[in-house]
Amino acid sequence: MSFELHASHDEQLTRLAQELSKGSLDLSGDLVLRIVRESYASLARTASVSQHLVSLTERFAKQRLADIARHHTHSDTPQVLFLCVANAGRSQLAAALLNHLSDGAVIARSAGSAPSSEIHPGVQRMLTDIEGESRSAERFPKPLTDDAVRAADVVITMGCGDVCPILPGVRYEEWDVPDPAAASGQDLEEIREDITTRVRALLDTLSNK
Amino acid sequence: MSFELHASHDEQLTRLAQELSKGSLDLSGDLVLRIVRESYASLARTASVSQHLVSLTERFAKQRLADIARHHTHSDTPQVLFLCVANAGRSQLAAALLNHLSDGAVIARSAGSAPSSEIHPGVQRMLTDIEGESRSAERFPKPLTDDAVRAADVVITMGCGDVCPILPGVRYEEWDVPDPAAASGQDLEEIREDITTRVRALLDTLSNK
Repeated sequence: MSFELHASHDEQLTRLAQELSKGSLDLSGDLVLRIVRESYASLARTASVSQHLVSLTERFAKQRLADIARHHTHSDTPQVLFLCVANAGRSQLAAALLNHLSDGAVIARSAGSAPSSEIHPGVQRMLTDIEGESRSAERFPKPLTDDAVRAADVVITMGCGDVCPILPGVRYEEWDVPDPAAASGQDLEEIREDITTRVRALLDTLSNK
Repeated sequence: MSFELHASHDEQLTRLAQELSKGSLDLSGDLVLRIVRESYASLARTASVSQHLVSLTERFAKQRLADIARHHTHSDTPQVLFLCVANAGRSQLAAALLNHLSDGAVIARSAGSAPSSEIHPGVQRMLTDIEGESRSAERFPKPLTDDAVRAADVVITMGCGDVCPILPGVRYEEWDVPDPAAASGQDLEEIREDITTRVRALLDTLSNK
């Protein structure tokens, strides 16, 4: 275990929390620090490369703080949460497609019930194709959090079963989409087509609200 | 997915948070509610039987609140956190043995980097043998949390690699103990003997502080 590396991580997390607290959110510094530290702990459970952990924590914690703020302020922009097991294939692809097809009119999030350490390489190539190198490189598998469910208007589950608390006012759908982890190149294209069709149909229901 | 069941869960969680807030802890109701909800979400990711989820959440949230309170108050009772991958074998056994052998003079906790849905049946029988039916029935696999690490004086890792933030003032040890999941009855006895010897040695170092 790399003791020194991680000791410096803790200082970096404290600084990160201080910076995030300075943002416009109406949250106490203590709560922000706790969310940053807990985000790190939950990513550390699954991440394979520890030197990226602090930057992953920053992205994950920012999303969680945005989810909490959104839950408080009741934003008008619809938010959709895609859930699968590994958050390495289907849910990443669906979120990227919805972001892309809605052109920013919908916020798409994704998470997994047992997140992998990395996105499936075939899916990563598709993400780059959909939304470009820099944006797709920002994506990473992350665990389902309570904040993410509460911030969502729609939750789409894909093969992850009964992992999601059911809340009043949130719409739930189960999509029966194959797992890209076991798919060939051709199968992967079909999965992308399948998800694209479903995302377009979903987008229609959100625009007509 | 059992939608109705989970809708009632959310009300139960809100009541649970209200009850826990009435305790002696110096924590805001908002923070307690958040910890209760997040505990539920993280257990829901791995639990196999959803009807036990609320009672598991109560036990997990109480531990987490105790960990946070302990970190604030700097208790004199040493606390040890045992970590393995599944929190279904080695770490459960080590925590039960340390609780038993220390006779309450040490607080033992356990957690996993990828918690299973259930404790390994052979280990569950040993836990019952060590600490009795009612206490052993209270044990369950749970994910590593930041609070648990910060509340610990000693963290013992068993085969779960680099998952734990390294903090100043916390002592870390790696124990090379085989995984009971793949063990026969005889092997399991040997693992218990191995852990018992290590726990006794650890206890000596804690008593001599």
